[in-house]
Amino acid sequence: MTAYAKLETKIREITRLREIEAISGWDEACMMPSGGGAGRSQALATLTSMIHERLCDPEIGELLNTARADGAILDDWQLANLSNIEREYVEATAIPAELVRATRLATLNCEQAWRQARAANDFQSIRPLLEEVVGLERQTSEALGSAMGLAPYDALLETYEPELRARDIEPVFDDLKQFLPEFLDRVLASQHPAEPLTGPFPVEAQRALCEETMRVLGFDFERGRFDVSHHPFCGGVPDDTRITTRYHEEGFLESFMAICHETGHALYQQGLPVGWREQPVGDALGAAIHESQSLLMELQVCRSREFIGFAAPMIRKHFGRDSADSAWTAENLYRAATTVERGFIRVDADEITYPLHVILRFELEQALLDGSLPVRDLPEAWDDAMQKYLGVSTRGNDADGCMQDVHWYAGLFGYFPTYTLGALGAAQWFDAARRDLTDLPAEVSAGNLRPLLGWLREHVHGRGRQTTMQSLFEEVTGSQLDAGFFKRHLESRYLS
Amino acid sequence: MTAYAKLETKIREITRLREIEAISGWDEACMMPSGGGAGRSQALATLTSMIHERLCDPEIGELLNTARADGAILDDWQLANLSNIEREYVEATAIPAELVRATRLATLNCEQAWRQARAANDFQSIRPLLEEVVGLERQTSEALGSAMGLAPYDALLETYEPELRARDIEPVFDDLKQFLPEFLDRVLASQHPAEPLTGPFPVEAQRALCEETMRVLGFDFERGRFDVSHHPFCGGVPDDTRITTRYHEEGFLESFMAICHETGHALYQQGLPVGWREQPVGDALGAAIHESQSLLMELQVCRSREFIGFAAPMIRKHFGRDSADSAWTAENLYRAATTVERGFIRVDADEITYPLHVILRFELEQALLDGSLPVRDLPEAWDDAMQKYLGVSTRGNDADGCMQDVHWYAGLFGYFPTYTLGALGAAQWFDAARRDLTDLPAEVSAGNLRPLLGWLREHVHGRGRQTTMQSLFEEVTGSQLDAGFFKRHLESRYLS
Repeated sequence: MTAYAKLETKIREITRLREIEAISGWDEACMMPSGGGAGRSQALATLTSMIHERLCDPEIGELLNTARADGAILDDWQLANLSNIEREYVEATAIPAELVRATRLATLNCEQAWRQARAANDFQSIRPLLEEVVGLERQTSEALGSAMGLAPYDALLETYEPELRARDIEPVFDDLKQFLPEFLDRVLASQHPAEPLTGPFPVEAQRALCEETMRVLGFDFERGRFDVSHHPFCGGVPDDTRITTRYHEEGFLESFMAICHETGHALYQQGLPVGWREQPVGDALGAAIHESQSLLMELQVCRSREFIGFAAPMIRKHFGRDSADSAWTAENLYRAATTVERGFIRVDADEITYPLHVILRFELEQALLDGSLPVRDLPEAWDDAMQKYLGVSTRGNDADGCMQDVHWYAGLFGYFPTYTLGALGAAQWFDAARRDLTDLPAEVSAGNLRPLLGWLREHVHGRGRQTTMQSLFEEVTGSQLDAGFFKRHLESRYLS
Repeated sequence: MTAYAKLETKIREITRLREIEAISGWDEACMMPSGGGAGRSQALATLTSMIHERLCDPEIGELLNTARADGAILDDWQLANLSNIEREYVEATAIPAELVRATRLATLNCEQAWRQARAANDFQSIRPLLEEVVGLERQTSEALGSAMGLAPYDALLETYEPELRARDIEPVFDDLKQFLPEFLDRVLASQHPAEPLTGPFPVEAQRALCEETMRVLGFDFERGRFDVSHHPFCGGVPDDTRITTRYHEEGFLESFMAICHETGHALYQQGLPVGWREQPVGDALGAAIHESQSLLMELQVCRSREFIGFAAPMIRKHFGRDSADSAWTAENLYRAATTVERGFIRVDADEITYPLHVILRFELEQALLDGSLPVRDLPEAWDDAMQKYLGVSTRGNDADGCMQDVHWYAGLFGYFPTYTLGALGAAQWFDAARRDLTDLPAEVSAGNLRPLLGWLREHVHGRGRQTTMQSLFEEVTGSQLDAGFFKRHLESRYLS
């Protein structure tokens, strides 16, 4: 057995434990009764520790060295796999075992408490737990940064999207900060408001609509599930991919668009290379690419005039409405799905204001991590930034302010920027797909997503981690990630 | 830190991994889409192997020796915990690591294939997988037996109920084989048949009835869930106890009685001693005691005239029936719930024929394990035994014959006898509770199960593994397990 083959065997065992971790994590969010929380946090922390311990096995370091020396006999996929294993080994060995366990425990406890604190609009109750999480994330970012020769925040970015740095994000965000506010004013001044869609919107009808939409988009129910959670997400593993949404009886667009988004994630996960199921190279490339897939489905496909035209009869069927009712025409549904407004909630935001929500978080999370923004001042800083970027105030409404997203409470610092990079990427992928698939608009109008899915499987999903984000964009679309596609998309959809 | 304290720390970590294993196993049965099966089997086999590896850590053996020497400073619970850890260590170290993994993998694959094979009534398709499972269970029983100085089948019994031996079961079963057939004839000759309960029985109404019944019996939904699976079971962990049932639209008694049964298991699990959550002494005593709790709820409580009298209005409410309809009176519902008949299916069997189903399995599983019954001859042997004990034939209907239960396909050999020991125990516990709680029949008639649950919590649930089955019966009821209580119960219910 070669060193490389031994390495694959050791890593395969770790991947299997991670599959168990993914399913238990999904269960914690979707199925677990509240009384199970304390025990589950301990159990997951133990499992995470054990995975970390196995990944830090010095034998992996030795095998990596030997396998590198044998490099000549490995093919491209194996070489890419080796690099990915090396990256994971460096990351794992950078963080002390006790910090891994403490972080896992603190983030699980904080996330569980957040569910109550958000419902009660009670930031003070969650503050000490969030302070603990911020402190642990700071330690982690410093440990990772020092092992990888990166600034602490860059080290966190690296764990979500390899090779992504704050200095690459800043000019893009500066450009958007310049472009979007003025663009937003022009759109708000010119848009035709949609007629209101009035209920009832029974949860069961919403669920059925979501499920039918998932089937149209290509979700494979033999290898996945669809459930409810506090915050929509995509979890599980490639052959058991699990997405969630949440329902409010006052409207269906939130659950519907969340499911369009999460199905994009799921299609990526279900389309990862079959031959590399239990190796890192078979995993998703990174969070920005993942978001580019979810936002491609949500923004480029599902909010398009073509798709809404196809979906309108399906939507009317589930809620028992008639096309003679002017609120339920395809045109009005399209207007409702593309309504632009300054709002509080990121996940409900239109695609113009959405990047402003992300920029706010990108700036605040760096300040939280470097200590310049103490956690106790977060509600006020959030409100200030909301007023500055979106012209709305969240004072006294932390539930819809700094408690609206689970991310920080769950220890996800450095993740938010990938949403906006994903939105840019989605526009760029869709532009490239439209060039390759000349019938694409007509197919989308007919609800036939198979050609697009085939294209994504070939060019993105099936590539796993064989390359890097920028190389993949360059290879498939002809250029590195470029905000121009996104801006042209916005202009075409909102001002033409 | 004393050796005992170190031992507790090491065992705590293992218990936490077992919690993850329990939840992932529940997920496999209740939530997992079929495409996830192959990957999940590998992942669970890896986790099981790792738990086994940790339990075999030679340091545990050394700590056990040192802690034994320190025995004088340990209290009763700690001493009992030490014995339980020792027992688990001996069992774990008896089985080679490769056999543990191979068995876990083979039983998961076989159980998954059984779901399809049973639905298709295709024993031949599952035969090779069952042969593999039987071969592995044979190796396991021999390895365990040689380490513990027990016959192979006794070694399997020991893993389900400490100190239980085939030689103790045989005279009890011989007695029942003598008593039941004649008793059954007398009951069949004298029973008043129930008026048929005709549908529809919508799944949602059945589910709501089950849930309301669980609440009446005392199930804590803050620390548990209720779902659907191919075969009803109770899983999860004390603070996250998960029970399941299955529905058929033709009738509601099956799902209803299954949930009464599983709630009995759940109440035991939720009532285990809180102070010992992550140690073996805090676990359930064994399978026979577990079944005595489920059957106490199902047979002694829920099939009683008192409980059915209480439940009748609740049942009518869920299915929209009227007490003026003679089929839906409490009296007729009681007759339906205590109808005795010779049938194919163990889980649907009345309490008189049930032990005959178990005796059949007790005899066949010993023959499968010692090789005197080859797996290929199982369908015929099953049919012969059904004709002998129950006077019905399963020829050509293996789905309702040797494929009706998941147990053997999931590697559970040595479990079946505990059902009938549990039925005997249930009668004995209930007799003792009735002596201590003089108002018990009236409370059950009023749907107030709290006094009974309090009694069980004190005398059985809260005791964990602090003692053994026979000692517990003797201490609480005044005698060791005695079939007389069960026989008197049957006579009183069916012939008085």
